[in-house]
Amino acid sequence: MAIKVHGSLFSTATMRVLACLNEKGLDYEFVPIDMKAESRAINQYITSTYTDKGTPLVFHDPKEMAVLFVGMQVESLQYNPPAGKLTLELAIKPMLGMATDEAVVEEKEAELAKVLDVYESRLGQSKYVSGDSFTLADLHHLPTLSYLMGTRVKSVFDSRPHVSAWCADILARPSWQKVIAMQKN
Amino acid sequence: MAIKVHGSLFSTATMRVLACLNEKGLDYEFVPIDMKAESRAINQYITSTYTDKGTPLVFHDPKEMAVLFVGMQVESLQYNPPAGKLTLELAIKPMLGMATDEAVVEEKEAELAKVLDVYESRLGQSKYVSGDSFTLADLHHLPTLSYLMGTRVKSVFDSRPHVSAWCADILARPSWQKVIAMQKN
Repeated sequence: MAIKVHGSLFSTATMRVLACLNEKGLDYEFVPIDMKAESRAINQYITSTYTDKGTPLVFHDPKEMAVLFVGMQVESLQYNPPAGKLTLELAIKPMLGMATDEAVVEEKEAELAKVLDVYESRLGQSKYVSGDSFTLADLHHLPTLSYLMGTRVKSVFDSRPHVSAWCADILARPSWQKVIAMQKN
Repeated sequence: MAIKVHGSLFSTATMRVLACLNEKGLDYEFVPIDMKAESRAINQYITSTYTDKGTPLVFHDPKEMAVLFVGMQVESLQYNPPAGKLTLELAIKPMLGMATDEAVVEEKEAELAKVLDVYESRLGQSKYVSGDSFTLADLHHLPTLSYLMGTRVKSVFDSRPHVSAWCADILARPSWQKVIAMQKN
């Protein structure tokens, strides 16, 4: 059986092992772990493949589905750019013992506030971002939302009543609590 | 067949996919990718398992083996702490568009210089760090050495003639050049 190496070609740990395998002249299969793998595309695949299982997360009606696509686009192109950078600066970097770039935080917090103004208005009209049921468009916010709730940026969410209620609702879902429990174990 | 999710529980991409699988109530197996996996231990396992393949990388003689263990300890406990931090600050962070912490660079460069003074003396007595053949004790330096050669810290190596010759020698090994070629493809 061929040796399989799972890793990233830019990780010093992976590079160290590959150099050793090359020195030994051994056959191996390198299995790249792409940390940027498009999790949103994977989720769309999961929901379209397992349509009869669990929470639907998508709609059957084409009009509702169009609204859902808009919601997913807004998350990915409007919400995630500032939210992702704030997660890095305020949650990930401190975990790694790295310094937060305050200038980036200030700029991205202002950007996020503008995006959340649009969310506040939208969530005044429907319980979830793409209508009255929980969909992928809501779910895709969970990881960054969860990280940011543990940072000072929490206030940007808390100060908007509809956004705040929506956050509390989706973060309390058992599916998400299960992910948090996995992290803790 | 159960769904397998390879990832890190702290990666927002992984968390997003797990939340979706939980919503769908699907069975899956989470396969953690531990980025801190001890590559040095893996390499010792490889060399002790495939003794008759390729470059030996270890010794049979117990005395020589003791010297090799010292060399591996020095790499791991003396060289790697400053070299790893300098790699993060000067190579990894710039690749990710993150700011280098100059105070850390200054401190770690001074630490590294002291470690390399010991290497300079050692490499004046033998061609490699644990004797006259290339072993795991040399190989384990390659990833950080390779990254640092592309940074301003290169001068700390270049200013020490024996260290500089050793770097040029081990970085030119076909096993290492193969890793670099993999990164480029």
